[in-house]
Amino acid sequence: MPEYPTLAAVDLGSNSFHLQVGRVEGEQLFYLDAHKEAVRLAAGLGEDKRLDAASQKRALDCLARFGERLQGMPAGAVRAVGTSALRVAKNSNEFLKQAKAALGFDIEIVAGREEARLIYLGVAHSLPLSSEPRLVVDIGGGSTECIIGVGYEPQERESLRMGCVVFSKRYFPDGRIDKAALKAAVTAARVEAQSVAKQFKRGHWAEAVGSSGTARALAELCQQAGLSDGAITADGLKWLREQAVKAGSSDRLDLPGLKPERKPVIVGGLAIMSALFEELKIESMQAAQGAMREGILWDLLGRVHDHDMRDVTVEQFMRRYHVDRRQAERVERFALHLFRAFQDSCPVAATQCLGWSAKLHEIGISIAHSGFHKHSAYILENADMPGFSRQDQMRLASLVRASRGSLAKLPVQPDEGLWPLILCLRLAVRLHQNRTEVGLPEWRLVCKGGDCQFQLPAGWLAANPLTQAALESEIKDWRGLAAPVRLAGLREL
Amino acid sequence: MPEYPTLAAVDLGSNSFHLQVGRVEGEQLFYLDAHKEAVRLAAGLGEDKRLDAASQKRALDCLARFGERLQGMPAGAVRAVGTSALRVAKNSNEFLKQAKAALGFDIEIVAGREEARLIYLGVAHSLPLSSEPRLVVDIGGGSTECIIGVGYEPQERESLRMGCVVFSKRYFPDGRIDKAALKAAVTAARVEAQSVAKQFKRGHWAEAVGSSGTARALAELCQQAGLSDGAITADGLKWLREQAVKAGSSDRLDLPGLKPERKPVIVGGLAIMSALFEELKIESMQAAQGAMREGILWDLLGRVHDHDMRDVTVEQFMRRYHVDRRQAERVERFALHLFRAFQDSCPVAATQCLGWSAKLHEIGISIAHSGFHKHSAYILENADMPGFSRQDQMRLASLVRASRGSLAKLPVQPDEGLWPLILCLRLAVRLHQNRTEVGLPEWRLVCKGGDCQFQLPAGWLAANPLTQAALESEIKDWRGLAAPVRLAGLREL
Repeated sequence: MPEYPTLAAVDLGSNSFHLQVGRVEGEQLFYLDAHKEAVRLAAGLGEDKRLDAASQKRALDCLARFGERLQGMPAGAVRAVGTSALRVAKNSNEFLKQAKAALGFDIEIVAGREEARLIYLGVAHSLPLSSEPRLVVDIGGGSTECIIGVGYEPQERESLRMGCVVFSKRYFPDGRIDKAALKAAVTAARVEAQSVAKQFKRGHWAEAVGSSGTARALAELCQQAGLSDGAITADGLKWLREQAVKAGSSDRLDLPGLKPERKPVIVGGLAIMSALFEELKIESMQAAQGAMREGILWDLLGRVHDHDMRDVTVEQFMRRYHVDRRQAERVERFALHLFRAFQDSCPVAATQCLGWSAKLHEIGISIAHSGFHKHSAYILENADMPGFSRQDQMRLASLVRASRGSLAKLPVQPDEGLWPLILCLRLAVRLHQNRTEVGLPEWRLVCKGGDCQFQLPAGWLAANPLTQAALESEIKDWRGLAAPVRLAGLREL
Repeated sequence: MPEYPTLAAVDLGSNSFHLQVGRVEGEQLFYLDAHKEAVRLAAGLGEDKRLDAASQKRALDCLARFGERLQGMPAGAVRAVGTSALRVAKNSNEFLKQAKAALGFDIEIVAGREEARLIYLGVAHSLPLSSEPRLVVDIGGGSTECIIGVGYEPQERESLRMGCVVFSKRYFPDGRIDKAALKAAVTAARVEAQSVAKQFKRGHWAEAVGSSGTARALAELCQQAGLSDGAITADGLKWLREQAVKAGSSDRLDLPGLKPERKPVIVGGLAIMSALFEELKIESMQAAQGAMREGILWDLLGRVHDHDMRDVTVEQFMRRYHVDRRQAERVERFALHLFRAFQDSCPVAATQCLGWSAKLHEIGISIAHSGFHKHSAYILENADMPGFSRQDQMRLASLVRASRGSLAKLPVQPDEGLWPLILCLRLAVRLHQNRTEVGLPEWRLVCKGGDCQFQLPAGWLAANPLTQAALESEIKDWRGLAAPVRLAGLREL
């Protein structure tokens, strides 16, 4: 990957959108300008789980402003990431198309546990290094991430389906607060938190840190009320709950240090934080500065410096699923060799994607040998894969699902751009079915207007009738397919 | 399981149907009468992968005759198993309903690798015990099973998609034989065999055994031609291929020892056997007597004597997928306790099924924590689970998929009979969400006309508000559901 002098992260959070720019200095990163807008995307999620027009407009306007700042930056230096609200919204695909146009860069959606990893990365870099395990809690607009980690390494990551925007809207409609509603909100949050309590409760960490706007606001309120020296405390939360009920509505909640923009979502956040204190036996929590946007930058910096988290994950998966490494390497080498035919017309990332898919195409054997490529695809679609966005995982799954078997019967049509990769991977898999190192001569793909010819040395086919049969069957698989490339024929040189 | 004096196995093979009856004497089994009919089910599979009317009629007539012999036997003492043709046929569900009516007993479909296990069990019991690894090859009508095992233990099992009926029909239509067609058939079979060659070729076994009608017929032909003393040999196969081409059609193939009923399918079988000899480097193969039908009997005998293969598999899966055993046990104990409310109206097998599902409901965590019950169900649907039929696996998957989350959004409606199990499993999972041993008092389910009340001691709910919230949410999940049982309410005693 080329080195970029500047990197940028865009966080399309469910409460706020953030833009963070960083300057690269060797393996170090210096934060430059940061922008934040309280878009409140999750507030636009209706009963039908669709983002309404108003929230989409707020989001697109904000992204257009961010896009202006990012103008001229290379695609590889910018990463834009959506979280809970976009995970949940049924119309996020349509929205993302417009959002991409407004921002001028691709936007990915990450799973909850990947969000947790990025948050931890951002928070860990904002705190003094420590060898003691830390609990990091990030109450977002639509989800809450809990992480335990040591140094820069997250060890436990979970994402819970509760957030300050969603809870404020659900339990305190129009900002009305009463004792029963607050109790119901805290109980609901405790039920959620209970599912991770065993792993995350006190005893597993030495220090608790809160990283979201909610945590910083609650810490500020506790301090200004003279109830702590800047930490969130159980007593402070209790006092805040009393104040909230007394005020009767979030509008009327006037506390020293409470910013107007925080008011509409503070009670939902307070309920969730109270529940976490209770279930995880937290007594005191410091607020931290770092967040997902900084984590994205550090992750991006790693990719540039060959510490790509995705490579680490692929390696882990090969081990976890007992992949036959020699077979995976044979298939990878051959597929990448054939892919030279396309490399001019395909983005750099495609080569990476082809390599990963070759490494992982057999992980599904761990479920069953029969139809294993489908099981591999299922795992890739559903597993927690640190470093990969949802779209990355879908792309890998789509590629692996098409690596064997009938192309006509694929349940989902692969993206246009995947077809050259599919062709190379399929040929590599076909030619290594007997799982042995065969001294393959110099094969080549030669493509003209989508029709690809597979060239091989004279006399080879006659000497290898089984491979010939396999290749002829492969040509049949491509016949009549509406794909931008096709295996059209074999030719001996 | 009760002990039965007599057990029976029905094998609905793709070429022949078999009935085998056995007498139980302690842990021993003595074969009684056997019946065989050349139904040739796979020959009725059209291009559209549907069984035609004629083949269905042949099959139903045969099953009715078998049914007469089985009349009066208890359901637990009879096991009827379908294989390749029924795995492949798109209309097998409809056919199975009629087939069940004709036979008078349930009919299961087993996966190829489970078929391989049962074949090995049958063959191993028909041969002198040996401590050397054996290769067993079973060329059926629609699939070919390869197994390597020692003693009664299969170690490698694979099922290949080629069989004597299917290959005879595909490569030798109307019985016409010529050199090119035979070469094409052998090449196609070699391509199939190649995928397992590495695992199964000479060097991995000391002795090769063929167990199907095809193997016995080929051995007989080799012997009668004076080419061997009763084994199939590479030379003998070569000579047979020459004779087949010379004859020009299977009708005109008149060889000493070739039975008329074997004629229509011998060339397909010959092509497959030739390919296996070539790819697995077999030089000589003995024909054995045992087959799947005997394997089914031995497997059934094991179930009676508490050596149920299914228990072994469940135990293996708990280990393979690193199941939290204490949690699984808590859930199992509680679910079985609640299930007493239904035990009078549910078959004995239901209790077993509930226990297994509780043990396995968390295996999907190995793929991802989020939505793990769906991943567990995916594994149960697709994995190779020795001892379980396809229907068994689907039932377990269906139960586990319904063990958490929304009941209204299940992709497939569970069988009627599963609902009481679902209710018990869900409650057990809900009540153990915090994964700790809680001294649960005596809860009970009391059901009237499908409406079930969950009874618990006075004051419990108020003291456990989180559980109360979980249970109330559970009641909501059942509301408006068209299931034969429902969780209708909570009642403190």
